Amino acid sequence: MTQLPTGGLALSQLDEQLLQPGVKGLALTAPLRQHMIGVQRWNVLAGDTGFPVALLKTSALRHNLAWMRTFCERHGALLAPHGKTTMSPQLFDAQLANGAWGITLATAAQVQVAARFGVRRVLLANELVAASDIRVLLHLLRDDPTFELFALADSLEGVRRLAQAVAASGLRRPLPLLVELGLTGKRAGCRTAEEAVAVARAIAAAPGLQLAGIEGYEGLLVSNDRAADLERVETFLQGMTALVSRCDDEGLFTGPQILLSAGGSSYFDQVAQRFGGVADTSRPVLTILRSGCYLTNDHGHYFDLTRELDERAGGAVGLVPALEVWSTVLSRPEPTLAILGMGKRDASFDLGLPRALLRHRPGSDGPVALDDGWRIEKMNDQHAYLRLPEGEADQLCVGDLVGCGISHPCTTFDKWSVLLLVEDDYRVTGAVNTFF
Amino acid sequence: MTQLPTGGLALSQLDEQLLQPGVKGLALTAPLRQHMIGVQRWNVLAGDTGFPVALLKTSALRHNLAWMRTFCERHGALLAPHGKTTMSPQLFDAQLANGAWGITLATAAQVQVAARFGVRRVLLANELVAASDIRVLLHLLRDDPTFELFALADSLEGVRRLAQAVAASGLRRPLPLLVELGLTGKRAGCRTAEEAVAVARAIAAAPGLQLAGIEGYEGLLVSNDRAADLERVETFLQGMTALVSRCDDEGLFTGPQILLSAGGSSYFDQVAQRFGGVADTSRPVLTILRSGCYLTNDHGHYFDLTRELDERAGGAVGLVPALEVWSTVLSRPEPTLAILGMGKRDASFDLGLPRALLRHRPGSDGPVALDDGWRIEKMNDQHAYLRLPEGEADQLCVGDLVGCGISHPCTTFDKWSVLLLVEDDYRVTGAVNTFF
Repeated sequence: MTQLPTGGLALSQLDEQLLQPGVKGLALTAPLRQHMIGVQRWNVLAGDTGFPVALLKTSALRHNLAWMRTFCERHGALLAPHGKTTMSPQLFDAQLANGAWGITLATAAQVQVAARFGVRRVLLANELVAASDIRVLLHLLRDDPTFELFALADSLEGVRRLAQAVAASGLRRPLPLLVELGLTGKRAGCRTAEEAVAVARAIAAAPGLQLAGIEGYEGLLVSNDRAADLERVETFLQGMTALVSRCDDEGLFTGPQILLSAGGSSYFDQVAQRFGGVADTSRPVLTILRSGCYLTNDHGHYFDLTRELDERAGGAVGLVPALEVWSTVLSRPEPTLAILGMGKRDASFDLGLPRALLRHRPGSDGPVALDDGWRIEKMNDQHAYLRLPEGEADQLCVGDLVGCGISHPCTTFDKWSVLLLVEDDYRVTGAVNTFF
Repeated sequence: MTQLPTGGLALSQLDEQLLQPGVKGLALTAPLRQHMIGVQRWNVLAGDTGFPVALLKTSALRHNLAWMRTFCERHGALLAPHGKTTMSPQLFDAQLANGAWGITLATAAQVQVAARFGVRRVLLANELVAASDIRVLLHLLRDDPTFELFALADSLEGVRRLAQAVAASGLRRPLPLLVELGLTGKRAGCRTAEEAVAVARAIAAAPGLQLAGIEGYEGLLVSNDRAADLERVETFLQGMTALVSRCDDEGLFTGPQILLSAGGSSYFDQVAQRFGGVADTSRPVLTILRSGCYLTNDHGHYFDLTRELDERAGGAVGLVPALEVWSTVLSRPEPTLAILGMGKRDASFDLGLPRALLRHRPGSDGPVALDDGWRIEKMNDQHAYLRLPEGEADQLCVGDLVGCGISHPCTTFDKWSVLLLVEDDYRVTGAVNTFF
């Protein structure tokens, strides 16, 4: 990973902030400036931090940043990683320092956070129709001529509202929009090419708006039948490229390039390949991938999906998990049951429960890997139920540490205001912040 | 509700804090001191706030605070509401101002937050065995002789670790502990009376520790057969009172009172009744209830459970829902489908999805109530899928507001750093903070 603090004043303010006792994972007994975390000589395995604690392995982050940069370069694609995953200014900064074209975000508030911490180009991967969203984002654009924002539209009513607001705002540059193509039964986006073209025409006809490209999200096509999923992804991407041609034939794109954006964390290889082949357009097509989970990967849902992606690419291992949550054993009430001090407030549970990876008794030699017989089988708000294999009761006692991988980074990051950066030996070297 | 700012310096610091653009639900275009929120004349229905936004109806909070106070007084019970639900210093303060004996918390970090904002008496409803937890909490106790902490124990090993740490710490007063009685197959706590008595004896024998009482959590006994649940709750509570008698007969309690604590948000009426009948002890028994969700109730899981509680009590309506999450319609891609700008990052989804209550078009007359045909059927990280009844397609368009009730306050509060206080007409009068 490139050094984190390449950002501006606001990022250094995060380093200077005084963290108070009570910040999860730190076990502070007095306030501490954040930049001092790295010189405390804390080691998670020594029990120096608080528990539960969320950890980012810097070696894995570095690997994933470099891997994705190479992937994009090889495919001639640009990356606007979905920042909603981490909402961490320091991680945005690392992504931009590693070649990202911009940051994708989901809400107006998220865009405000990114802008505050120095992000200069944002793709708002959402319809910009809500009055309060329009208000704060037009303010940001008026306030700072160097800040670039691209947003989505999928309805004539939405375009009408936005055109009206832009006209009233006095914004001196056109607002670039991408038409969202959707999938029947899924989320937002026009359901047919006809609808999408109608929206594109409305944008092109509105004085303050500019048709900048076409957007879609294929990542919702995850079922138990991957072969069928991949076919539907392919059909959807073809629909997007056909829409680009059609809008281009009508002369609706007036910017310097045409943005063509798709790509969650599951099928971005398919997207890069399909979009790389778009030709014969009036102006260059920029393929913008938006994976958010590539940065940390995980030990569950996205791990499995990226292993499939590796297989499609020929087998070499690509992204590796970077995010772990460690907690302590609070109770051993039954021979095969341990209660951990980690719960729904600390680790994601929406796409699978955490996976127990390691156990460790502070003071003993390095951590011991756990096999699949050790299983988190349930979580309450503040507790996890770890099932031990039969006959292993004496391997774990109260006060021991358990390291878990997680499934779904997005819903883990949002449970932590501070995550610790660690080396492979669990030495703590620093921290990053999140803003949810 | 008694006025919120009865706390000390730290609470007023929250009022003075400068909120930055990007705080969810505020739609700020410039920094704003928190106490200025109440004089902005914002109304949620006018679209003045950001969306999504989390709202607390002050009339409902006031009602619930008063209702619970009366309930406890009538039953001779004390209340140490579970603070993990809200983790809001201003709400802790309101609870204490309305007669709460103390605040219950789940983790050492939560105790630190509460102490920082002026809470003087905490019941840590968890085993205190992790080295880092012991370290920070003993520091707090040494640092401030007026701060009172009660914690749990359920194992001889845990008592041994704690006794050792207390002896080494130089703490000048005994650390009061409650033995946790558990339920086979459930969470922490001794599985048998024999085990519990053994732990109680170990505590009584340890120089720096004091046996202060008995604790249990009956709230895990929620199945589809409520009659069976209630029987199991009753049996469990009887086990707890029997344990009190047994420990008392052995002379293990040495404090001024015996604390007897149970009571989540589902069966606290049963607990109050059962514990109110404990007699013939060497010293007074204090019944400590710990409901966390009474304060806001909800529109789902806890609403249903408290309606049952009302029926057991004779039918008068007790607690009422105080917490709503409002969002905007971002897309209307299909006649019966609306996509809302609210997702798993904004509202709980672990004990049921949010319930659509109201729709509103800013500028129109008051909000329109939605019947059960309007249903949130799914959420992604940042989106909700609202299904409309057939034939109502023209009732909702992009930019409209939808107000939702939630199911499970704990996992909604933890998604917001600022929640807005509103009157019944959705005028915004102030804000509270959370520390997760």
